[in-house]
Amino acid sequence: MSHESALVATTPHSLINAPRIPDSWNHKHLLGLEHLTASEITLILDFAEFLHKATSNGRTKLDLLKGRTVANLFFENSTRTKNSFSLAAKRLGADTVEFSSSGSSVAKGETFIDTAKTIEAMLVDAVVVRHSSPGTPHMLSNHLACSVINAGDGPHEHPTQGLLDILTIRQHLGSLSGLTIALVGDIAHSRTARSNIWGLLKLGAKVIVCGPATLVSKNWEKLGVEVSYSLDKILPRCDVLNLLRIQFERQAIRPFPSVHEYTLLYAMNQERIRRSKPEILIMAPGPINRGVELTPEVADGPHSVILEQVTNGIAIRMATLWLLLNGRT
Amino acid sequence: MSHESALVATTPHSLINAPRIPDSWNHKHLLGLEHLTASEITLILDFAEFLHKATSNGRTKLDLLKGRTVANLFFENSTRTKNSFSLAAKRLGADTVEFSSSGSSVAKGETFIDTAKTIEAMLVDAVVVRHSSPGTPHMLSNHLACSVINAGDGPHEHPTQGLLDILTIRQHLGSLSGLTIALVGDIAHSRTARSNIWGLLKLGAKVIVCGPATLVSKNWEKLGVEVSYSLDKILPRCDVLNLLRIQFERQAIRPFPSVHEYTLLYAMNQERIRRSKPEILIMAPGPINRGVELTPEVADGPHSVILEQVTNGIAIRMATLWLLLNGRT
Amino acid sequence: MSHESALVATTPHSLINAPRIPDSWNHKHLLGLEHLTASEITLILDFAEFLHKATSNGRTKLDLLKGRTVANLFFENSTRTKNSFSLAAKRLGADTVEFSSSGSSVAKGETFIDTAKTIEAMLVDAVVVRHSSPGTPHMLSNHLACSVINAGDGPHEHPTQGLLDILTIRQHLGSLSGLTIALVGDIAHSRTARSNIWGLLKLGAKVIVCGPATLVSKNWEKLGVEVSYSLDKILPRCDVLNLLRIQFERQAIRPFPSVHEYTLLYAMNQERIRRSKPEILIMAPGPINRGVELTPEVADGPHSVILEQVTNGIAIRMATLWLLLNGRT
Repeated sequence: MSHESALVATTPHSLINAPRIPDSWNHKHLLGLEHLTASEITLILDFAEFLHKATSNGRTKLDLLKGRTVANLFFENSTRTKNSFSLAAKRLGADTVEFSSSGSSVAKGETFIDTAKTIEAMLVDAVVVRHSSPGTPHMLSNHLACSVINAGDGPHEHPTQGLLDILTIRQHLGSLSGLTIALVGDIAHSRTARSNIWGLLKLGAKVIVCGPATLVSKNWEKLGVEVSYSLDKILPRCDVLNLLRIQFERQAIRPFPSVHEYTLLYAMNQERIRRSKPEILIMAPGPINRGVELTPEVADGPHSVILEQVTNGIAIRMATLWLLLNGRT
Repeated sequence: MSHESALVATTPHSLINAPRIPDSWNHKHLLGLEHLTASEITLILDFAEFLHKATSNGRTKLDLLKGRTVANLFFENSTRTKNSFSLAAKRLGADTVEFSSSGSSVAKGETFIDTAKTIEAMLVDAVVVRHSSPGTPHMLSNHLACSVINAGDGPHEHPTQGLLDILTIRQHLGSLSGLTIALVGDIAHSRTARSNIWGLLKLGAKVIVCGPATLVSKNWEKLGVEVSYSLDKILPRCDVLNLLRIQFERQAIRPFPSVHEYTLLYAMNQERIRRSKPEILIMAPGPINRGVELTPEVADGPHSVILEQVTNGIAIRMATLWLLLNGRT
Repeated sequence: MSHESALVATTPHSLINAPRIPDSWNHKHLLGLEHLTASEITLILDFAEFLHKATSNGRTKLDLLKGRTVANLFFENSTRTKNSFSLAAKRLGADTVEFSSSGSSVAKGETFIDTAKTIEAMLVDAVVVRHSSPGTPHMLSNHLACSVINAGDGPHEHPTQGLLDILTIRQHLGSLSGLTIALVGDIAHSRTARSNIWGLLKLGAKVIVCGPATLVSKNWEKLGVEVSYSLDKILPRCDVLNLLRIQFERQAIRPFPSVHEYTLLYAMNQERIRRSKPEILIMAPGPINRGVELTPEVADGPHSVILEQVTNGIAIRMATLWLLLNGRT
């Protein structure tokens, strides 16, 4: 990586050769990838790569954020994202505190902003927020003095998911520039799609959104992506397929083809792998529906990097926390 | 045992200039403020002030209780108090463990005392207990060898809330002696009121309890406080107003005026601020009902110290844990 | 503040004389006691004894597993076992992460194996699993590269419970060889019974299973234990009684005598204590039903070691984690 290195010393068990945060980095919040530059995205990826290597033996605990506190404020169900943030914080030596909608003061009539300000008043350094309403993290960032990280705001953005997807592609295929990446499936409900699109376009990739017409609007072309309704047509051109989860729990509103029909047209199976580029990467943000977005053979096959995405998620979140809490803000 | 030995060493951190605990301090539990002396209360406030300063940059983790374990045993819903205790323990380096009523052995028919003794047998040093029955922490303290901290026992006491309220007043107005402090609103259901009254009277303050007759009995005069049914009459004399939350969820039993009527007579608004002393402090234990106990302008205005109370809550709980677990007991 | 100041230095924690793990230890998982040898069981007991002493002052935190992560994956209600594993991990310096069935990705249609692999991909070193289906931990161990610890799989095994029971007996009565130990009560539903039987037989003890015919099948004799339907008959021969909990929540399927009848025939009371050996140990895995398996006088009496079992549970789980994560695997 191209950034200067400087020795960061904390207690002896975490003496690591940490890269220096450049003066140009001046973000306090991570609300989305839409408003980051290519070089800012690259910086986060570089730090994540460094932390991935530093902790990949499973034994390294870094105390870079010792004495800091990270609060999880999740108002939608989540296991993997919440725990990923929590582990990222702990591995940097920070304390964590968990708030959720059930059993909270919100149930006693407190406003959301008052809840968040109360959490901040406990000397919290960063609030990680998930909420069904788009824009909630942005609103919080206007009211809080601490850092705010968007862990998913409705169908809007999920920036750390976009970053971990991009990091995984970069690890396998190198520079993003010139690659063709298809996001397949439930684009309409997907914050993962939006964050991927912003990040991938900035780094020079070509993006295709592909799925049934009820889930993929022609309007997406305005963002600068190609819209396709046929996986089989675009398949030979793709370097990466990111198979978005069919969110059955959100399909009540708009018509959805039967699972059988969806699978027939959009599921990745061995037969479609044979018609793909030899080095094609199969990604999925998970949790996956085996037999829907992809067959078990593909999910567990040599092209799948689904579990690497999970591992990279920790590294991206560690990098995010480190940059936001130690940068020049 | 016959295995070979090897020396495993890590390092000491957090060498701080900590005040010495005086020999006169001999409490093992914090059950309420009723039975503490003025000098004991002052000692807790002094330690909290020290810890508040030591940790106020948000980066200091003290390892004074490293290797100790604090158990939260909450049998009523709580987010802020439970997390405040948990963060206080973690910032002192202690481990924490959470027990709650749902999913616990109590659901399998175990008695409350057996549950608590089982927790203690896991080598827990302090149990923080919240329960709807007054006297539960006292009962536990008779059965456990570890420290017991009352985090609210029905309408009886909530000593750390009383202490953090008093610390906040002292930070702004200095000595409590001679100040006039009104507790306004739902006195009948309020453990916060009781703990405030005991603490404030011991430190020489004058206390007024003020609210609708259905929520404020004349019997309170026996404790040595003034009873008033008119906020407007007492307003010019008050240095501090502590606006207790209207607990709508507990009002089923006794008649309550309409919210509109309550607001008309007891809510703090800008107009009432103008008729108050220029330095009046507006406090509330939270979660607040905006537009009920106080208007948003007052909650967010220059007299409000509501968020400072939250911050002081951590310091008071750190001081409590430190004194109980390191004192001469 | 006016108090004297003194420099408080925390002791260099975890400077300990740790026993070396012998080369012969080569287990990666703890799935049950059925397939461990007597010397392997003894090794775990020895390490637990060492850790019990090292941490028994309540102040010692060992950093032997610093930088490691232990995941709790509990798909059945549990407070004591889950918290016992969690505290064991924390006292060894490991990070912990909690997954449960509610609010997890399983609710979104993910398979159990995918959930577990996702957790592992977060660089988790050990998964502690409880599940209602016998064999779940074994299945997981075939799919995961990390260590798997069985915290109870249906009525099959609960090896750390068996080990902590045996450790408690050894502390009081020395060698297990030649002792007579009766497991009393609900044998049919009890994973504790199975793990005790395997462990006790390997260490040379005589085991009797005793209870109503509906809960104790003659088939148990095939394992090498004696079957009895009369506590009074076997009582004079027993060195230890392990009183298994009547799991009322699981009794729907098969006929159960009335509680009154059960108590008459199988409950330990003062009168039965008088007809026992003078040094008899009374054990129970808990949570206990006072007045059912034993009277309060016996539960709180001089023969009861029920709370010591809880304390030993932490030591056994620390030893297990240490051996699995630091051994030659």
